[in-house]
Amino acid sequence: MLSNMSRTHGALGMLLGVALLSWGASLADSQTEQAPDSDAQRIEDLVIACHICANEGVMDGFGHLSVRSARNPERFFMSRALAPAQVTAADIMEFDRSGNPVDPQGRRANGERFIHSEIYKARPDVQAVIHSHSPAVLPFGIAGVSLKPVIAQAGFLPLETPLFEIRDAWGAAEERGMLVRSSKLARALAEKLGTSSVVLMRGHGHCVVADSIRRATIRAVYTDVNARVLQSALQLSRNITALDEKEIAYNATENFDVDRPWDNLRLRLPEASKR
Amino acid sequence: MLSNMSRTHGALGMLLGVALLSWGASLADSQTEQAPDSDAQRIEDLVIACHICANEGVMDGFGHLSVRSARNPERFFMSRALAPAQVTAADIMEFDRSGNPVDPQGRRANGERFIHSEIYKARPDVQAVIHSHSPAVLPFGIAGVSLKPVIAQAGFLPLETPLFEIRDAWGAAEERGMLVRSSKLARALAEKLGTSSVVLMRGHGHCVVADSIRRATIRAVYTDVNARVLQSALQLSRNITALDEKEIAYNATENFDVDRPWDNLRLRLPEASKR
Amino acid sequence: MLSNMSRTHGALGMLLGVALLSWGASLADSQTEQAPDSDAQRIEDLVIACHICANEGVMDGFGHLSVRSARNPERFFMSRALAPAQVTAADIMEFDRSGNPVDPQGRRANGERFIHSEIYKARPDVQAVIHSHSPAVLPFGIAGVSLKPVIAQAGFLPLETPLFEIRDAWGAAEERGMLVRSSKLARALAEKLGTSSVVLMRGHGHCVVADSIRRATIRAVYTDVNARVLQSALQLSRNITALDEKEIAYNATENFDVDRPWDNLRLRLPEASKR
Amino acid sequence: MLSNMSRTHGALGMLLGVALLSWGASLADSQTEQAPDSDAQRIEDLVIACHICANEGVMDGFGHLSVRSARNPERFFMSRALAPAQVTAADIMEFDRSGNPVDPQGRRANGERFIHSEIYKARPDVQAVIHSHSPAVLPFGIAGVSLKPVIAQAGFLPLETPLFEIRDAWGAAEERGMLVRSSKLARALAEKLGTSSVVLMRGHGHCVVADSIRRATIRAVYTDVNARVLQSALQLSRNITALDEKEIAYNATENFDVDRPWDNLRLRLPEASKR
Repeated sequence: MLSNMSRTHGALGMLLGVALLSWGASLADSQTEQAPDSDAQRIEDLVIACHICANEGVMDGFGHLSVRSARNPERFFMSRALAPAQVTAADIMEFDRSGNPVDPQGRRANGERFIHSEIYKARPDVQAVIHSHSPAVLPFGIAGVSLKPVIAQAGFLPLETPLFEIRDAWGAAEERGMLVRSSKLARALAEKLGTSSVVLMRGHGHCVVADSIRRATIRAVYTDVNARVLQSALQLSRNITALDEKEIAYNATENFDVDRPWDNLRLRLPEASKR
Repeated sequence: MLSNMSRTHGALGMLLGVALLSWGASLADSQTEQAPDSDAQRIEDLVIACHICANEGVMDGFGHLSVRSARNPERFFMSRALAPAQVTAADIMEFDRSGNPVDPQGRRANGERFIHSEIYKARPDVQAVIHSHSPAVLPFGIAGVSLKPVIAQAGFLPLETPLFEIRDAWGAAEERGMLVRSSKLARALAEKLGTSSVVLMRGHGHCVVADSIRRATIRAVYTDVNARVLQSALQLSRNITALDEKEIAYNATENFDVDRPWDNLRLRLPEASKR
Repeated sequence: MLSNMSRTHGALGMLLGVALLSWGASLADSQTEQAPDSDAQRIEDLVIACHICANEGVMDGFGHLSVRSARNPERFFMSRALAPAQVTAADIMEFDRSGNPVDPQGRRANGERFIHSEIYKARPDVQAVIHSHSPAVLPFGIAGVSLKPVIAQAGFLPLETPLFEIRDAWGAAEERGMLVRSSKLARALAEKLGTSSVVLMRGHGHCVVADSIRRATIRAVYTDVNARVLQSALQLSRNITALDEKEIAYNATENFDVDRPWDNLRLRLPEASKR
Repeated sequence: MLSNMSRTHGALGMLLGVALLSWGASLADSQTEQAPDSDAQRIEDLVIACHICANEGVMDGFGHLSVRSARNPERFFMSRALAPAQVTAADIMEFDRSGNPVDPQGRRANGERFIHSEIYKARPDVQAVIHSHSPAVLPFGIAGVSLKPVIAQAGFLPLETPLFEIRDAWGAAEERGMLVRSSKLARALAEKLGTSSVVLMRGHGHCVVADSIRRATIRAVYTDVNARVLQSALQLSRNITALDEKEIAYNATENFDVDRPWDNLRLRLPEASKR
């Protein structure tokens, strides 16, 4: 897991007595004991991620989060059709690479699970997918205004975040809606995502991907903060300064401590959700 | 009740192994046992709806909600003059088709109950009416800017939400105010509503109608989200992309699971209101 | 007290079987037993008003509220220099018509108490004064954009809310600040208030007055809501529809039930502040 | 400490029976007994300041606060790399004038601690430094729009708040990021701060300095309020009235009671953070 890499990194920096390059990986500030990267651990993080995204206003009752299986990378875990704030471990279902539930046990799968299966197919590097309807991000797709990274913590965004227009994915004569409820539509979405960490979906929401569910959660939260800051900045002036290529490159994965904000956001959960 | 239809729909989809067309009706995620559609059940939902609307910022101290009687469709239930956050079952009064309280027991009726009686008269399909003063929706009527559906969950809105100007309903020489405290004014409002699910009232608020109090509640909440997203989008660009006719048609009642967001919003209530 | 008048009004309406003209005065929904209008009752309401204004975001740590004495209209009650959220009955001091504390008992008086003494002098009809720094209202004075009434509940605002520019009240050669810490400055403020219920203070805040501390509280809250709604409306269009003279006239004091929102806002207080 | 000065001031004003010039220093309203100005007291205030800044939305998981040592002005105290909401006294580390931890005891230092060391070096008057990523302030740096003082409580801001562009501090050929993780970058930041109390950092956040950690906290909170009010005012009109030189001068340190808002903000902390 990436957090191991950044820890070693941190300890090395300390030994050498030089300025640390990372945002500050923690030696002792993670609430969770560092477990081996197992499916049990991933599912535990997935449930917490559902609660964090709901608590931070990133998720309404309809969004969904998933994590790839560590044991079998062809499969992924995702809750049954349920509001993220209500998800417990018992609600997590396993899906195959086509988005079919492996052992549903009578639980209803989410109609948009293909978003997840198609992104995992197209992006072997991706370990977690978050699909959100966040009201802070939606205006950019609806207005056709580019979501650019403008704050230091949003260095995971590309210079221009891709925008998925679902009308382009439907045949001209078809009945068409807004939801991504087939592999065909989801493939078009995954194609628009490309190598990005985020793809906007016009009038619907957006998807965030990362190499862990913790990182995807922090990215989802900072995508939101970045959107709100950019919205306000654009109301002050159309002539803004976004992060440039060097600033983004520097701000890469290994320089960003995920556990610090993860622990912080977990602390903010209502008691009942903290487990 | 509609939720029965969407459940059958869901189970059928599961059996056929095809992608479900609904937003995801739940088999087991409703906190409330599915009771028969009785007045007792409708009143229980009405009280919860009052608390949800207050808790989500859709309601201030003056808004009001009602549900049609299942037993006698000429009648409806609505709380006495009381802030929605404070409503309990004991506060619910029964009204006849003219908006007269059937058995007031000394309780004060709301001065604007005619909004409800006239809408029930004009729209036999409507089972629930919510009148809100939500600060997110008000700016559209005041600015005369059309409230269009721009997010997937707001497919219940027409392409242009009708706007009621109360000055048009008053005689030129009359003393006139903002409130709808007579059948005459309420009839003009119901006429402006027409076949829509929402009507804006300039400088006053808006009304939301639906085929159940649960659905009306979810529509009231998403009318708010849609208004906030549209407000931000219009500040980014005047050239926005709203939902089109196909997207609205596809997003019809039977494709939208009401119980998922209802259960989610109910979970968010302060302990004292959860019953 | 006005609420007595509106109660009679309500009972009369019920007896006559006509549409009630009031917003709905309550027969039984006030949490507080209707006490005679005594100074004890006014001070009890003043303490609750401090907590409500803090809880609704109308007050920061520096605002202040006062009520005229029922026993001696030349005097008024106001807390010592203390954040409103922290005020208890023991913090309430009595002041004479010049703003001097009658019996300070070592308690520090607020430096801006002259705002209150001068308004009580100029406006015999005023029983309560609230001075707030609300961030929702401040932008209008700073931008020099008129705060107009645009929502039904803000009918107490005049067509144009007066704006106090403190620079005009200082002599040209004087050292001058933003605060109103002398009778001279406060007299200029009271003059600008005139017969209005609200006066804006550029870069500082505003004052709200009414015939009771309950009504002043509700007015302060709805001044805030009106400001936020107007801010958003003006961002949608410069061509807005405000309330007109007839709509304001109709919306007069006797038509507005203060107890309903008061009880509602009191219910929202954190447990520790509910007494 | 300044608060002692303002207390004497207050008592003197009372004795003379004149209008008090201060915002109202308190005789008895500070929750904390007035302890001698020791490092223990400074560290206790620092921990509370961390919680207040997090609770008021001024701090995300990555901001940091420090206070100069009273015993040895060449040193300062700052928490290990940890979200401010989680900081306890055990997390506070001591640093020397170059930003090296004196006795780390295995605790990870924050990568941006040089911001603090360089400001303490350049500004002997400064006793506390707060570095924040507040979303309310960020838009001004990104849009290149001047953050001016527009509210009475923000008289500590200069007429134009300086803006630090980190690109100017990097060599042209260097890899460069957004974070201030070296003494060289921090020196450039301290130089841009100059004699101001606040410096904006484009796309990153800002720094607030003061003569005590309490005052720095109140300044950080009012920098935020000022930014939000200015943002809204600029959306109403480009022709705004900011505080002028006289208004700022009058609003100087000795006229501003820090304990009143400090106690108020402390009261707002969740129970677990109140100690």
